[in-house]
Amino acid sequence: MEQGLKEAMEATNPNPSSSAAAELLNGVNAKALLDSVDAFLFDCDGVIWKGDKLIDGIPETLEMLRSKGKKLVFVTNNSTKSRIQYANKFRTLGLSVSQDEIFSSSFAAAMYLKVNQFPPQKKVYVIGGEGIVQELQHAGFTAFGGPEDGEKRAQWKSNCLFEHDKDVGAVVVGLDPDINYYKLQYGTLCIRENPGCLFIATNRDSVGHMTDLQEWPGAGCMVGAICGSTEREPIVVGKPSTFMMDFLLQKFNLSTCRMCMVGDRLDTDILFGQNAGCKTLLVLSGVTTKSILDDPSNQPDYYTNKVSDLLSLI
Amino acid sequence: MEQGLKEAMEATNPNPSSSAAAELLNGVNAKALLDSVDAFLFDCDGVIWKGDKLIDGIPETLEMLRSKGKKLVFVTNNSTKSRIQYANKFRTLGLSVSQDEIFSSSFAAAMYLKVNQFPPQKKVYVIGGEGIVQELQHAGFTAFGGPEDGEKRAQWKSNCLFEHDKDVGAVVVGLDPDINYYKLQYGTLCIRENPGCLFIATNRDSVGHMTDLQEWPGAGCMVGAICGSTEREPIVVGKPSTFMMDFLLQKFNLSTCRMCMVGDRLDTDILFGQNAGCKTLLVLSGVTTKSILDDPSNQPDYYTNKVSDLLSLI
Repeated sequence: MEQGLKEAMEATNPNPSSSAAAELLNGVNAKALLDSVDAFLFDCDGVIWKGDKLIDGIPETLEMLRSKGKKLVFVTNNSTKSRIQYANKFRTLGLSVSQDEIFSSSFAAAMYLKVNQFPPQKKVYVIGGEGIVQELQHAGFTAFGGPEDGEKRAQWKSNCLFEHDKDVGAVVVGLDPDINYYKLQYGTLCIRENPGCLFIATNRDSVGHMTDLQEWPGAGCMVGAICGSTEREPIVVGKPSTFMMDFLLQKFNLSTCRMCMVGDRLDTDILFGQNAGCKTLLVLSGVTTKSILDDPSNQPDYYTNKVSDLLSLI
Repeated sequence: MEQGLKEAMEATNPNPSSSAAAELLNGVNAKALLDSVDAFLFDCDGVIWKGDKLIDGIPETLEMLRSKGKKLVFVTNNSTKSRIQYANKFRTLGLSVSQDEIFSSSFAAAMYLKVNQFPPQKKVYVIGGEGIVQELQHAGFTAFGGPEDGEKRAQWKSNCLFEHDKDVGAVVVGLDPDINYYKLQYGTLCIRENPGCLFIATNRDSVGHMTDLQEWPGAGCMVGAICGSTEREPIVVGKPSTFMMDFLLQKFNLSTCRMCMVGDRLDTDILFGQNAGCKTLLVLSGVTTKSILDDPSNQPDYYTNKVSDLLSLI
């Protein structure tokens, strides 16, 4: 079934890259955009919130979109939380968003293994946060590593043999605040020595808004480390890979040309929307400044300061 | 002066890559090799020792080469030790090697900054071992980070600002057994936010013999992490970069065609020798097996099981 959907999706998008200059959102094109799409896909960090702070006007804007019958979906590359943990974060910020509306890269990693019929007797080693471990376990897989290996140390001694589980058939790598040599060594040995072991990256974002004030190294840092030690390239399941789009399409029974991807990053969000054949709206409330946007490569269809401009313009 | 030497070196080597199949060392070509070179450049791990164990026949072979008037140089990508610490390791293993005969990638990082007139008021942040910090300080630079940041933790809190020193003008990355998020964040901020900050890699070996029994992630792992978070490529000073060759040439006043590089790695040692225009001898006592050598790309001039075959063949 996923294969059919994938083909249908690709058929809607013969030429995903866009070179026309982005249009600043105004009263006219904002209304036309709303009329032309049935679903809005939102990135979270830099779009809905920054760190733990909601961006101005979000609750009212989401309410307006729901009142007009638009489907809302939240697609985030941040893998540190599971969908259950994300639904809690939305609730804490005063937003009513259900688990089914959330597509995180931690969930995508679990779904990638499910779709590809990962053998149930095999195990998954995690370099990353609790969200990845939870999603893998929720999908029925045996996952270990992650936060529980945060304090472990490799013994640098002569004649020391670092033992690893030969049943590990996949290593999933995401943002890991507790990265250490032990985890890097464990994941490296599995990928280099267990025949057929998969190397899956939740995403490759170089940096992200770990706090309100600063960008800190993202999953691209840990993924780069494992690329360096294994001389392998990962399977990426988060944006800009369109892997998650299969699930969205299946769930909401929509055409990608009737969707709009809203994000703050050209290299993940906007590229993800374009790769899938969606309309794209860049908001300047996150990592991308207007001067970056002036570079003519990879232009979104529209841009505006923040999501709530949709509310004030309509 | 370095520039002149570099040009001279390049002139001796119009076509560095070799495609002819490697010759197995025998009594005839071993003697011809000895007669045709004035200096032997040795890699250490997998050539002289494995972990903390000397490879069979090394003392006698080095003794024989010295007795025939050959210069001996030890060129290692392992940056965890300084040259002083390496000289101690040689002594502990019963080998008499002076500090001046040792060219480690930690020393190369310090020399790179010196040759490129790194401003003395600027500082260097180190992701790596004590060897790098010592070599930088020995060369007169202000270096920090490294082992002393091994237990530090970044605070993942809302409104947290991670402060970094704006005077850091270079980040040197090597093998780091105590890698953590704090160091990755510190190095990333310096490279991304301090104008003109250099990103120097001691080397990019994917794995190395950290113990006698197993290969563990090498500096390529930490370098890959910083590439992932900064979206920058490093200046590499270790093998296969020929940066260290300038110093060798200056010191020993030799022509590169009268040198033989002896190593266990095709992608660093043999390539380094070829890039510089040296003769090359691969030993199978380290990471490269005969079956890997059967791949016709990047062939050394000669191969043999171990360094001491030179002694038994002559």
